[in-house]
Amino acid sequence: MKINNVCILGAGTLGTRIALQAALSGFQVAVYDINAEAFMASKKVMAKILRSLSLTDEIIEKIKFTTDPAEAVGDADIISESVTEELPLKRQVWAQFSALAPAKTIFTTNTSYLLPSMLVDSVDRPALFCAFHFHDVFYSKVVDIMPHPGTSEEVVTLLEDFGRALKQVPVIVRKENPGYVFNYMLMAVIGAAGKLRTKEIASIEDIDKSWMVNFHMPMGPFGILDSIGLDTAWHVTHNLEDAGSQAFAALLKTYIDAGKLGEKTGEGFYTYPAPAYKDPDFLI
Amino acid sequence: MKINNVCILGAGTLGTRIALQAALSGFQVAVYDINAEAFMASKKVMAKILRSLSLTDEIIEKIKFTTDPAEAVGDADIISESVTEELPLKRQVWAQFSALAPAKTIFTTNTSYLLPSMLVDSVDRPALFCAFHFHDVFYSKVVDIMPHPGTSEEVVTLLEDFGRALKQVPVIVRKENPGYVFNYMLMAVIGAAGKLRTKEIASIEDIDKSWMVNFHMPMGPFGILDSIGLDTAWHVTHNLEDAGSQAFAALLKTYIDAGKLGEKTGEGFYTYPAPAYKDPDFLI
Ligand SMILES: NC(=O)c1ccc[n+]([C@@H]2O[C@H](COP(=O)([O-])OP(=O)(O)OC[C@H]3O[C@@H](n4cnc5c(N)ncnc54)[C@H](O)[C@@H]3O)[C@@H](O)[C@H]2O)c1
Ligand SMILES: NC(=O)c1ccc[n+]([C@@H]2O[C@H](COP(=O)([O-])OP(=O)(O)OC[C@H]3O[C@@H](n4cnc5c(N)ncnc54)[C@H](O)[C@@H]3O)[C@@H](O)[C@H]2O)c1
Repeated sequence: MKINNVCILGAGTLGTRIALQAALSGFQVAVYDINAEAFMASKKVMAKILRSLSLTDEIIEKIKFTTDPAEAVGDADIISESVTEELPLKRQVWAQFSALAPAKTIFTTNTSYLLPSMLVDSVDRPALFCAFHFHDVFYSKVVDIMPHPGTSEEVVTLLEDFGRALKQVPVIVRKENPGYVFNYMLMAVIGAAGKLRTKEIASIEDIDKSWMVNFHMPMGPFGILDSIGLDTAWHVTHNLEDAGSQAFAALLKTYIDAGKLGEKTGEGFYTYPAPAYKDPDFLI
Repeated sequence: MKINNVCILGAGTLGTRIALQAALSGFQVAVYDINAEAFMASKKVMAKILRSLSLTDEIIEKIKFTTDPAEAVGDADIISESVTEELPLKRQVWAQFSALAPAKTIFTTNTSYLLPSMLVDSVDRPALFCAFHFHDVFYSKVVDIMPHPGTSEEVVTLLEDFGRALKQVPVIVRKENPGYVFNYMLMAVIGAAGKLRTKEIASIEDIDKSWMVNFHMPMGPFGILDSIGLDTAWHVTHNLEDAGSQAFAALLKTYIDAGKLGEKTGEGFYTYPAPAYKDPDFLI
């Protein structure tokens, strides 16, 4: 089977980026969203990304944006779903598209924290269903391919090739694992950083300095937390049962209750748009 | 108190680098080792580092190398101990230098995995004793300052300034913590990577690719393990009691038993000097 037609569900942060990369890679792309207003924002983001890549924005004209699910799915070879991260919503969307899509269509979800097996019974073609998880498409070019136990091996292979066609490095996650590979390791770092802070072993700034200088990176775990969003981090952390995670979740909650969710609210562990860690004097 | 005279114990990998940086920063430096042969190797490494920094090697002439402990300590304001990482040996060395050093001398240990409180009762001046832990001095310029409960606050402040004078970013570790700050977080990443591998969730290569691409880093956790040494990693891991760490320690052991300790033996998870992760085709 050859992939030509790609249908993206959800025109938000990730749907926009996947759609653009698919169009740039020569695929026919249709984007569906329930909210037509999302399309304006999506096209603006695409134009901005194209400018940053020194590309003209003609490619945007080639992408079909529609609120009509049947029109969006058309003769799709693959659906990449990036709707809001809510289990009941995603299940409803998959039931809806199971009824609409041709039998051949491969179904993929870009979920960050759910597992494909939590969605599979809303899908009419379990063997063709797989998690296909992007990071941010243009800066961190990794795509995780995580089958559920019923996904066919051919689909995994096909997604590996499709991932490469989208200029991503495919990573095979053989067994379902929350956070796939990278986010799983990142959560371990963040958990360790959280413990260093809640046990009052080191300050937020010193923890970040340690990471930045040793790994020559532009930010440390708390800077990363600010960019992920403290609400998202709390969501993951407060479900973990160990005392360390609970203490860290409680710390995150004090920030969240004060309206400090990170970069997006202008404040988290640092203050934006000029957080201390970007100051050249931070590393002295 | 002002630091002028610096005494380094141990002319190995780290002692050499600390001594050189101290001399380059204008301090009077004496290096002590029980093994006079270590000095030749030490000077060679210094010359190599100086070349890489486009500096001439005159500075090496200014450093005193001696197997005489009393001559080494002289009128030292500070001792930085980098002898072999063995508890009884370090305790013996500290007892020896407690008897030799002037009352003013600050005592610091560069231990990676021991805690200052494990050494403190070999020391005649607990308030002047503190861990002062470098990473590699020239590439990763962080120095951890980790007091034991009896270290005086003045010593911490003084070490902060001395660390900056040595061009390091000081990180204060308020309470004793194995691995300080960075190694503690690194061990969390390595532990997570180990679990992904022992649970057969992903391959070694895919785990490393994930890290490298997302963090734009030249190697991933298994590449890092090869550079740390699998024996060192096993040492830390097999002491942890959770099932995940035990499984990972068992995996490390199979490599160690096969003589694969990492870069230093030519093979670990990868084969050296040209490991797969350095191949430009690795990230596709
Ligand atoms: N943001 C990230 O960094 C990131 C990274 C990897 C994966 N993801 C995952 O991608 C998915 C989308 O995340 P996002 O950040 O793009 O969210 P977002 O909020 O930016 O976009 C979600 C879009 O889904 C649309 N939507 C809601 N209900 C819908 C429905 N019934 N049918 C069609 N569209 C509907 C919304 O209108 C919105 O435009 C989530 O599962 C998330 O976990 C996000
Ligand atoms: N290698 C690293 O990356 C690194 C990083 C940070 C800290 N450290 C720590 O620094 C210390 C030294 O490590 P290294 O890698 O330089 O080891 P090394 O084996 O390269 O050097 C140790 C030196 O100590 C000498 N020595 C042994 N017994 C002695 C004694 N009684 N008196 C004086 N000298 C004696 C040895 O002859 C040798 O030259 C250890 O505590 C280690 O944990 C190492």
